[in-house]
Amino acid sequence: MAAEELRRHNLAAVLDRLHLSGSISRSELTQITGLNRSTIADLIGELVGLGLVEEGPGAVTAGPGRPSPIARPRPEGSVTLALELSVDSIAAATVGLGGHVYNQVRVARPRAFFTPEETAEHLAQLAGPLISALPQGHRLIGIGVAMAGIVRRDDGFVHLAPNLGWRDVELGSILDQALGLGAPLVMANEADLGALAESRRGAGSTARQMVYIAGEAGIGAGIVQDGHPMLGVSGYAGEVGHMLINPGGRACTCGARGCWETEAGEAALARRAGMEGMVGQHLADRIVAAAEEEDPRVLEALAETGRWMGRGIGNLINVFNPDRIVVGGIYHIYFPYFEPSLTEEARAVALSAPGSAVGIVRSELGEDAALVGAAELALSGVIADPAAVARYDTEASPDLVEGGA
Amino acid sequence: MAAEELRRHNLAAVLDRLHLSGSISRSELTQITGLNRSTIADLIGELVGLGLVEEGPGAVTAGPGRPSPIARPRPEGSVTLALELSVDSIAAATVGLGGHVYNQVRVARPRAFFTPEETAEHLAQLAGPLISALPQGHRLIGIGVAMAGIVRRDDGFVHLAPNLGWRDVELGSILDQALGLGAPLVMANEADLGALAESRRGAGSTARQMVYIAGEAGIGAGIVQDGHPMLGVSGYAGEVGHMLINPGGRACTCGARGCWETEAGEAALARRAGMEGMVGQHLADRIVAAAEEEDPRVLEALAETGRWMGRGIGNLINVFNPDRIVVGGIYHIYFPYFEPSLTEEARAVALSAPGSAVGIVRSELGEDAALVGAAELALSGVIADPAAVARYDTEASPDLVEGGA
Repeated sequence: MAAEELRRHNLAAVLDRLHLSGSISRSELTQITGLNRSTIADLIGELVGLGLVEEGPGAVTAGPGRPSPIARPRPEGSVTLALELSVDSIAAATVGLGGHVYNQVRVARPRAFFTPEETAEHLAQLAGPLISALPQGHRLIGIGVAMAGIVRRDDGFVHLAPNLGWRDVELGSILDQALGLGAPLVMANEADLGALAESRRGAGSTARQMVYIAGEAGIGAGIVQDGHPMLGVSGYAGEVGHMLINPGGRACTCGARGCWETEAGEAALARRAGMEGMVGQHLADRIVAAAEEEDPRVLEALAETGRWMGRGIGNLINVFNPDRIVVGGIYHIYFPYFEPSLTEEARAVALSAPGSAVGIVRSELGEDAALVGAAELALSGVIADPAAVARYDTEASPDLVEGGA
Repeated sequence: MAAEELRRHNLAAVLDRLHLSGSISRSELTQITGLNRSTIADLIGELVGLGLVEEGPGAVTAGPGRPSPIARPRPEGSVTLALELSVDSIAAATVGLGGHVYNQVRVARPRAFFTPEETAEHLAQLAGPLISALPQGHRLIGIGVAMAGIVRRDDGFVHLAPNLGWRDVELGSILDQALGLGAPLVMANEADLGALAESRRGAGSTARQMVYIAGEAGIGAGIVQDGHPMLGVSGYAGEVGHMLINPGGRACTCGARGCWETEAGEAALARRAGMEGMVGQHLADRIVAAAEEEDPRVLEALAETGRWMGRGIGNLINVFNPDRIVVGGIYHIYFPYFEPSLTEEARAVALSAPGSAVGIVRSELGEDAALVGAAELALSGVIADPAAVARYDTEASPDLVEGGA
């Protein structure tokens, strides 16, 4: 049993490496994993047999011996539908192993309070053409959903999504029914999934401990430590937007007063810039245009919002002692404009020891971080246990798994 | 190699269980570890051979078969000197495997700024008689030190200890020299070690994710997740006392303004109670006496300090989503008095989903939590790799390892 566990562990490690790196030679794999050549050959053989990897001849190298065969992930061997439900837009993508994006679409939605059923219908309409366009013989292994709220991962029960106007909604099963795909569905908070994506494929990929901060209507965070998400006991960690940071401040949508997002959130920025009521991409476009024209009121609004961003980030530096803070969501647009005041204030609040250990950077994946993270989450089960993918070959038809998962 | 790693892992798991549980029968060990009887017998045999465990006959039970032999940790097989350097007191204890305390002593110190050399001398004077009183044939495997500051674990370099008046002090090597024991020395922040102790042997032992809050002159926190400390990339995580929580508030010793400890710390409590300038145990005695006499000013000072404690705790609930908050340090004395206002305000700041997952409780180990944690830290190396203890048998004499560690 121990030997079998070890084999599964090694199989997962090789597939994960291929998933993140794309093409890689057997000899590179031996170096990265520390496993010997015959073990690598054996593991790759198993992954090829499972339809998850394909091998081609290697390039001729300067060194002695035959060129080492090149392995690469086989996208259609494990395909996921990634969905994102943000406050200002919804998005869908079909993503195969290795991060191959077949198709991707995002549409803006007005910030009206749609019902969960309407929203599920919108997402299903977005996903339908993408699913139809998938290549013959693909294996749909699951659906990953990123959403702007406090959600239970295992069944997609939404406790609270103040910016969508929802409380206690069984979104997982509503969405499962609307999609009718019969594939297992996992749902998580968009900040947590943005964090996963940035730590795997973005600005946090070389960090040991990363705090990803997603600004949209509110502010959320996802924390990744040594490759593992810090989710808390029930998956709600990272609700940093509701840190009390200014007791004399404004009332928050959460019912409390002086939360971080009442000072550093989008509404505060809009108010300071004289653009009250504007939101999302529309606000960002206006703010950026005015900043480029050096409108003094907008520049000061950005600087002041940056100061408040920095104060909260300073708190997170003192609490977590991370080596990387990644600023993302809609804030990846504002980052170049408020970085100076943000950094100055973060340094003032952080103690010098943890302050000197951290870099504060802009998201690399930008708007798509949570969608990329949703695909990563959905694919993670197959990567952790590649052999289990075989069960999708007999369950591939939605007809056979009616009402499943 | 894999088999050997597995064996070491199992050996460590059995020793850790014995260390925490004390006496335990072989049959209970098979149930707890999932290992079979012959493996358990074999592992215990090895631990007995290493001098870490001893076995005695089991009690006759109602069930069939012979009584299962009882194993117990052998304290003298692995002894540590635990030291604590707090702002108001210093303490020492000699602790053997299983948590057996041979001797323990704590002395109050005035809150004057002693030099590191003076402090090391004080600790050495405290430790000397305890070391002399250890039984013949004991193995001193290391020294664990808890200290009130930001300290690097591997060499005991103190970056900042504002309440001791120190910055950039090589305390590890100064203390090593003053003690002259030649045993390896590990040093860590007292909040982190209090957290370790509470999670292993106190109020957090059944928690999955615990935030331990230590109040003394300042406020620090230690975070333990699934048995593992969250230390940050350079060991400085948990500096929660310097969360910005009241921008209009007072200047803090750290140089910033409105930190949590300026509102919820001891000085704020003393000021509100009209006992400005009093500190530590002396202040606590006066506060408790006045509270017992229902002095309205002191009751309100406790309530207001409790409210600020609760606000910061609410932030930590939103950030970490823990299942247990343990309030310790000198605050375990105040806890019964400010619990109502603390809890009320924490519930107001925390979002309902993470708020409903958490219990806020008083430290069980009280004043000694960090000292217990220092012993646990020093013993952890032997528990992780029991076979390595044999090296102390040839290096046991301090004369032979002059200038070691």
